[in-house]
Amino acid sequence: MTRLHDADRRDFASDNYAGAHPEVLSALVDANGGHQTAYGADAYTARLQEVVGAHFGAGATAYPVFNGTGANVLSLQALLPRWGAVVCAETAHIQTDENGAPERVGGLKLLTVPTPDGKLTPELVARQAWGFGDEHRAQPGVVSITQSTELGTLYTPDEVRALADQAHDLGLRLHVDGARIANAAAALDLPLRAFTTDAGVDVVSLGGTKNGLLFGEAVVVLDEAAAPGLAYLRKMNMQLASKMRFVSAQLVALFEGDLWLRSAQHANAMAARLRAGLDALGDRVHVTLPTQANGVFVTLPRAVSAELRRTWTFYDWHPESGEVRLMCAFDTTEADVDAFLAELRRLLDAQG
Amino acid sequence: MTRLHDADRRDFASDNYAGAHPEVLSALVDANGGHQTAYGADAYTARLQEVVGAHFGAGATAYPVFNGTGANVLSLQALLPRWGAVVCAETAHIQTDENGAPERVGGLKLLTVPTPDGKLTPELVARQAWGFGDEHRAQPGVVSITQSTELGTLYTPDEVRALADQAHDLGLRLHVDGARIANAAAALDLPLRAFTTDAGVDVVSLGGTKNGLLFGEAVVVLDEAAAPGLAYLRKMNMQLASKMRFVSAQLVALFEGDLWLRSAQHANAMAARLRAGLDALGDRVHVTLPTQANGVFVTLPRAVSAELRRTWTFYDWHPESGEVRLMCAFDTTEADVDAFLAELRRLLDAQG
Amino acid sequence: MTRLHDADRRDFASDNYAGAHPEVLSALVDANGGHQTAYGADAYTARLQEVVGAHFGAGATAYPVFNGTGANVLSLQALLPRWGAVVCAETAHIQTDENGAPERVGGLKLLTVPTPDGKLTPELVARQAWGFGDEHRAQPGVVSITQSTELGTLYTPDEVRALADQAHDLGLRLHVDGARIANAAAALDLPLRAFTTDAGVDVVSLGGTKNGLLFGEAVVVLDEAAAPGLAYLRKMNMQLASKMRFVSAQLVALFEGDLWLRSAQHANAMAARLRAGLDALGDRVHVTLPTQANGVFVTLPRAVSAELRRTWTFYDWHPESGEVRLMCAFDTTEADVDAFLAELRRLLDAQG
Amino acid sequence: MTRLHDADRRDFASDNYAGAHPEVLSALVDANGGHQTAYGADAYTARLQEVVGAHFGAGATAYPVFNGTGANVLSLQALLPRWGAVVCAETAHIQTDENGAPERVGGLKLLTVPTPDGKLTPELVARQAWGFGDEHRAQPGVVSITQSTELGTLYTPDEVRALADQAHDLGLRLHVDGARIANAAAALDLPLRAFTTDAGVDVVSLGGTKNGLLFGEAVVVLDEAAAPGLAYLRKMNMQLASKMRFVSAQLVALFEGDLWLRSAQHANAMAARLRAGLDALGDRVHVTLPTQANGVFVTLPRAVSAELRRTWTFYDWHPESGEVRLMCAFDTTEADVDAFLAELRRLLDAQG
Repeated sequence: MTRLHDADRRDFASDNYAGAHPEVLSALVDANGGHQTAYGADAYTARLQEVVGAHFGAGATAYPVFNGTGANVLSLQALLPRWGAVVCAETAHIQTDENGAPERVGGLKLLTVPTPDGKLTPELVARQAWGFGDEHRAQPGVVSITQSTELGTLYTPDEVRALADQAHDLGLRLHVDGARIANAAAALDLPLRAFTTDAGVDVVSLGGTKNGLLFGEAVVVLDEAAAPGLAYLRKMNMQLASKMRFVSAQLVALFEGDLWLRSAQHANAMAARLRAGLDALGDRVHVTLPTQANGVFVTLPRAVSAELRRTWTFYDWHPESGEVRLMCAFDTTEADVDAFLAELRRLLDAQG
Repeated sequence: MTRLHDADRRDFASDNYAGAHPEVLSALVDANGGHQTAYGADAYTARLQEVVGAHFGAGATAYPVFNGTGANVLSLQALLPRWGAVVCAETAHIQTDENGAPERVGGLKLLTVPTPDGKLTPELVARQAWGFGDEHRAQPGVVSITQSTELGTLYTPDEVRALADQAHDLGLRLHVDGARIANAAAALDLPLRAFTTDAGVDVVSLGGTKNGLLFGEAVVVLDEAAAPGLAYLRKMNMQLASKMRFVSAQLVALFEGDLWLRSAQHANAMAARLRAGLDALGDRVHVTLPTQANGVFVTLPRAVSAELRRTWTFYDWHPESGEVRLMCAFDTTEADVDAFLAELRRLLDAQG
Repeated sequence: MTRLHDADRRDFASDNYAGAHPEVLSALVDANGGHQTAYGADAYTARLQEVVGAHFGAGATAYPVFNGTGANVLSLQALLPRWGAVVCAETAHIQTDENGAPERVGGLKLLTVPTPDGKLTPELVARQAWGFGDEHRAQPGVVSITQSTELGTLYTPDEVRALADQAHDLGLRLHVDGARIANAAAALDLPLRAFTTDAGVDVVSLGGTKNGLLFGEAVVVLDEAAAPGLAYLRKMNMQLASKMRFVSAQLVALFEGDLWLRSAQHANAMAARLRAGLDALGDRVHVTLPTQANGVFVTLPRAVSAELRRTWTFYDWHPESGEVRLMCAFDTTEADVDAFLAELRRLLDAQG
Repeated sequence: MTRLHDADRRDFASDNYAGAHPEVLSALVDANGGHQTAYGADAYTARLQEVVGAHFGAGATAYPVFNGTGANVLSLQALLPRWGAVVCAETAHIQTDENGAPERVGGLKLLTVPTPDGKLTPELVARQAWGFGDEHRAQPGVVSITQSTELGTLYTPDEVRALADQAHDLGLRLHVDGARIANAAAALDLPLRAFTTDAGVDVVSLGGTKNGLLFGEAVVVLDEAAAPGLAYLRKMNMQLASKMRFVSAQLVALFEGDLWLRSAQHANAMAARLRAGLDALGDRVHVTLPTQANGVFVTLPRAVSAELRRTWTFYDWHPESGEVRLMCAFDTTEADVDAFLAELRRLLDAQG
């Protein structure tokens, strides 16, 4: 096979438009060759347990899976009885971007709450965490938060702890969709466990793909009692890789050293650079949300967005208002950011 | 990450104990770098359509997915209404090895038939293909066969055609679980389309993992009218890769040249060599099934199996009878086979 | 068996606290005796088709089922592909009171909209009816409204027509949860078809239980092309009565004459009487919603509610505000209403 | 509504072609009038618990539901984790007649075994009760038997006990589909608990419809620890009757005295009479199965069956062989049986 694309072109569309980090590809080469027992009884999946234990505590167990939707649905299904429901933000990925997988595959009901910034609070959770024992109501059993959120915002450890305490007091569990958890750790300048294990989280969807893997995430169970049957759920939900060594080796490559952190710090720094550049443009553009991780949300004149898209792709966030999302990845360069900002300034100036 | 395993050790357990072919790893490197649109709008997924079209006909569409269970469940769900059922062999992978994914995720019912050799015939299908219009009975809507079968046997194009004709006459569709379809093509010495598109098959689960990919299969729809909504089904069933270029590039590397065929021919040849060696051992071992692809099924004295397992892993097939399965992969060597046979002969001789 | 309850005591809790109308019981006696083909090929189910046709038009087909949740889930499943979603009010019964049956059994996703009065409008529907073709989003395929609504309000025929037109323009279908559709017809003083068939509705959940049946509803399909496979869906979703004559006979008894209308008119009249009495109490109580059918929503002092509950049961609607729901049934009497109002006045007076 | 059918005509098709026993209708009248709390908090459902406790032991709890498929699916779902499977006979109603409800609604997998007479034995169960801990295999968690079976045969208490002991030794549970459990008790001349509670059964689907109710069955949980969450499962699976008093009152009418037994004894006696008459016809007809409850299976000349069907309906069992099923109900009369036999003899004689 030959290269079919321009390997020097980068967008601001999503961190999953980026490819894989070279160290991750290198790990695949190392993990290759010879035979290894399929379905997880291999050396790399064993090593992954040690790596995950070092981050999240010795009691943590990692179940590698293919993708983030898979990690989320498995986590939630493991945490809930058949009649269970999940309290989550209206903007949660599980609600907006998984085509009903939690409902259709998981048999779950989502009880959503509008939020200003993608973050739940105990007050917001309380709007849905009620009706216990009422057979007519899907029974709230899990609170699910995303860290960093779909809106590029962060939970502090104290904020997570408050949600965990509330959840546990009510008999619920706390799940973290950590598709961008590395970005959160980098932004908070804290180890992963500070705002998960140590803050009372029960299960984490540990993200890899958006931080430089080819593919691969893991359900990380922090309280084993909370999530029985995950091995069975993984298989029946079609998330069990036969050659699991290739998922695990990528996750090991990411998390055993500081690759996860370096990559996330870089993506965050590029977002901060982008944000600073937008701020410098004055009130011709309107940044709509705090820039706390690797995503920047900004309202641009429509005509300007259209022009920018001749060179870069990025997502419409609210088509009505002109708000767009600009996402930085592990491989976004300063030059990428500066070129984008320069072109944006030029277009705004031209608009007069 | 450093290598944690012996890259020179190979087993006879499964073709998914093997790693990835070097050409496949190389394709990942080529596909890496820069940004590519996520979720399938990338250059490699586009190229895959051409490659698949060359094999299966211009009307074929490939939907890359993560694994074989995913390919099967998506295929069957796309082919069936909610009240549908699948006629399959009692030994079909979908029945025996997917922890109920077709039922639990797909909402399907499997109507199974015992077979001597893992192969359906029109007579066997007729045992379950009835009850049309009876609301009490799950409505047969698909016949699913595996090529090559879970028992290492093959369907000829005429045999597939007979099943397709019967199915279509009854208003059913024909699905092929092609986890080892390359081994079938190699053994039949026929192009893939000869026993799929040209034989009336509607949808194929096109296997890659067992033939040297890290992971990755594709649902290949041969009759577009037969399988609406596959893009939605893939997402909601958690089989949509965000960085799809890395699934597609592997499949392109496998199928655009003759890597798929070379690898399968080699695995088959190793199985034939193993079979010949077993035959030469006389009636001290009992080969139980035809050796038509890359699997050999043989009954060994239990004590001998136990001793062999000090060096090689392989599967028990029927623990009661001592039947085991010996599977050859793209990377099995003649030396591997010869060493196994020599040790087997030594152990049998020692038994007296 | 002997009577175990006080047959003269009535509450304001729900129209399903009431029993069955004597004419309905009488129909059961008539339908009894001898053998009738099970599962719907009986004389009463045949007659029901005529009766339903007279109300909804000759093209209508009724599928009797056990209960309202069953009718709703069957309707929605029949109207949607596996990747479909339902736009509905946040207060819809399917969202709030069915313990996730639409999600868990139907595999559907609900896309909810907050409303002031339980009623959708085209503007509100538009907030969720988007994202067509985006594989990440559950695909909106049905708009579901409740008539009369869970908040005791009504849609006019024009309002229904506007929703149907919008839905059809977008390629969606319109479903009516008609658990209290008779109350709507009585209040609107219109035949059933005026705000269903003639207003563009595709499928109705035709309510019986709340209007004096022992149990029994029907999925009424107005556009046959919209809802294939209902017979299969009914069986597989466990809503197929073997002795269907006893469901159908009740529905015939209700709908072949004017029993449905008399009963609904009476319940509505009792609610109007109750509402008038509440209004006469001045600002000591606060009626929160229009009284258009058989439910009255009013905020009462908590201590007063507690005292009233020594004699009558009724539902808390918003425990925080003291809002309660008072529901009238076909068997609520003027004396019941007057006694309730008298006691309420006494308690308010005593409060000072 | 007026009577639309011939109340004096009876068939041999099914016990659910029969209507309701007059005592059951009478109970509906008694339970009617006034308001009773919906969804089960009524006097008749409370009384039912006492009645069921008297039959099955004080620890038994009854959950009234609408129909047999509902009772079975709820029972099995309550007894199994999401990855569970059910070992059952190939002829079990859950396998053959529920259009995949256990799979589609329950998310279960059925592991079937061929049997000569519809009855499982420990040896037959062992053919599917294996693979514990293997994530690829749906995990056997319940053995489900039907008493009396779909083939009109019976389990003795010792046979049930042997299955229960095996199941419990393996960590499984034992479920009884008791759609015709009264016929079994009548035939065995034993109380219900002798071959359920006292024989180690965990959950029973207690049949009512086929024994003279209009509709109505109950999930009876004998070991509460075995079946958590039934109230939630009943609602979410659309089996919760709002006016539950009318289900419970029927079950009370059936089971609080000896109506259940009288009716079943009568149906069995009619089947025995029919069987004796068939035996007297010599080898011109071939009875294929033991007549132990209320069903008779016999092979008739096709032309004779066709003639008989001018007067009576009955089911084809194996169309190829001419085997038919003749089912007697609580209301089958001696005259019905004698007329059938006379006509059969006449037709056989005429055939020469």
